[in-house]
Amino acid sequence: MRIALDAMGGDDAPEQIVAGAIEAIEHLSSDDELILVGPEETVEAHLPPAGSRRGKISVFHAPDVIGMDAAPIESLRKKPKSSIAVLAKLAKRGQVDAVISAGNTGACVAAFQMRMRNLPGVVRPGIAVVFPTPDGPVTICDVGANIACKPIHLYQYGAMASVYSKNLLGIENPRVGLMSIGSEDAKGNELVKKALEMMKSDSNMNFVGNVEGKDIFSGACEVVITEGFVGNVILKLTESLVDGLFRAIRDELMEEKLQLAMEFKPVMKRIYTKYDYSEYGGALLLGVNGTAVICHGSSQSKMIKNAILASKRFDTKKINDRIVEYLSGTSAGTTDE
Amino acid sequence: MRIALDAMGGDDAPEQIVAGAIEAIEHLSSDDELILVGPEETVEAHLPPAGSRRGKISVFHAPDVIGMDAAPIESLRKKPKSSIAVLAKLAKRGQVDAVISAGNTGACVAAFQMRMRNLPGVVRPGIAVVFPTPDGPVTICDVGANIACKPIHLYQYGAMASVYSKNLLGIENPRVGLMSIGSEDAKGNELVKKALEMMKSDSNMNFVGNVEGKDIFSGACEVVITEGFVGNVILKLTESLVDGLFRAIRDELMEEKLQLAMEFKPVMKRIYTKYDYSEYGGALLLGVNGTAVICHGSSQSKMIKNAILASKRFDTKKINDRIVEYLSGTSAGTTDE
Repeated sequence: MRIALDAMGGDDAPEQIVAGAIEAIEHLSSDDELILVGPEETVEAHLPPAGSRRGKISVFHAPDVIGMDAAPIESLRKKPKSSIAVLAKLAKRGQVDAVISAGNTGACVAAFQMRMRNLPGVVRPGIAVVFPTPDGPVTICDVGANIACKPIHLYQYGAMASVYSKNLLGIENPRVGLMSIGSEDAKGNELVKKALEMMKSDSNMNFVGNVEGKDIFSGACEVVITEGFVGNVILKLTESLVDGLFRAIRDELMEEKLQLAMEFKPVMKRIYTKYDYSEYGGALLLGVNGTAVICHGSSQSKMIKNAILASKRFDTKKINDRIVEYLSGTSAGTTDE
Repeated sequence: MRIALDAMGGDDAPEQIVAGAIEAIEHLSSDDELILVGPEETVEAHLPPAGSRRGKISVFHAPDVIGMDAAPIESLRKKPKSSIAVLAKLAKRGQVDAVISAGNTGACVAAFQMRMRNLPGVVRPGIAVVFPTPDGPVTICDVGANIACKPIHLYQYGAMASVYSKNLLGIENPRVGLMSIGSEDAKGNELVKKALEMMKSDSNMNFVGNVEGKDIFSGACEVVITEGFVGNVILKLTESLVDGLFRAIRDELMEEKLQLAMEFKPVMKRIYTKYDYSEYGGALLLGVNGTAVICHGSSQSKMIKNAILASKRFDTKKINDRIVEYLSGTSAGTTDE
């Protein structure tokens, strides 16, 4: 399998990206290849000399870089030789089987969507992330690819995330919840009400109806569907709240007794490990014709390594084939409402 | 001041509501009155005998009750003698100065809005809650009153929540952020983009532009504006995540060492006290012509007591007069877009 990495994407690129690629090598099989996409000289400078540990890593030259906060569409137009644009082109031409970037999310979504095209039957791709919760992994889709959502998009996110949850996370019959402001059918805006009807009409989906903000971590379902704006707020709020709470606890412990803070450290570490979302290796752009993983801008080598392994699992488990199969076998949501 | 309470609203009504009223008495002045609205016999049965501690508490008969999960509009139509409907009527007739309920939120919003009408210049009321954060209280509006938001509504939420933050919480020049999916002006959906322009055009507002989910607890601003669907998800997610994390820590500590869990208890309690949102006494329905406080369904007596005191502060500080003053002095958002 040929996996292309955006060597220049992320706050700590190219160091952490290259390091992640090197860490991944020992977990790959003999016919796997990693292609680092970025300015050749810069990337080469971060690689060990050829012949040593670098093994199956090659560099594909892309001279430009799109900034983390740059306007996505405009930068892609201005920089057709940026690492993100080149990644997308390589995927389009079938020169690579998977693309991974921790760079500008908007640019990744736009480039991958435009070049890779959608899977047959898919109307709009969506980004799925996995939240580790006390009751197991919960997949949330969409977290920011699509902020002009239609009911059919939400329905298909439910279908795609179900397939993902079942075949990649191994959850037998994942329960799908639709994010709303109350659990009753009548609660929610027009978008949610229409999507609810579509989801209810699909007998293959284990749909549990509307869920609320409190249900993501309550064990109410294994898949949460929402439009990209809400999903993005959920993602960023959750990350910051968890970090903030741990900081508050640490500060309070330090004031109480230094000894207590020390004793608390391994406990905190264990919780971190238990709920470490980097284990899931970034977010999948579900619905594109290929394998596309988008990582957090702050990704370190471990996350990149896990993203590489996640892209391999995604490919091996033929998630895309199963999505196409699922969508072709349902009559729900076949009209574009 | 005459403050009316929904004696039957909330998971632990009437016990906790009556208890909250009794706790509040000693903090009120000689010309304050508390009116418990609900089925006379039921409420009386929970009050101490007349002449003893009950002081300035009276009961106003309302035979019906709207269930916590009932359909708001339908129940109000079917039960014109429910405690929520009667509360709203008392406010409308000027028989009370403030209304407080921990009952069905949708029914409260609908009844209060319909009967009390809007303040001059206000297009749509919104619910404001205060989140305690490490950097001080952050006011979020709207958290669920309005899920069909227009740009003018968001703009006015910014104005009203600013007035509230300044005059009630004592924050000198509160910074207002607009919830979006990136901090740049170009980020967000159409609603957010239009509201951003309106907010930017108001030189009286200390507007800091778009903020993200991670900024609620980052000290980026003291006021966060968002439409009711997103605000509701934020509110419920935050509550459940904080509770869930504390539970996870406690469980982990118990496994590590019971002694450690015991030592951790006072630290946890201190954090709870520091970030106790019940201190702020529920959510204000900003924009109605009167004082309306909506409390969490799980409210206990302390929250009800604080809601009574909050309604008094809201009235004493003449927040509504200041909102009308603010809106009449601005040219931003005068057209209903």
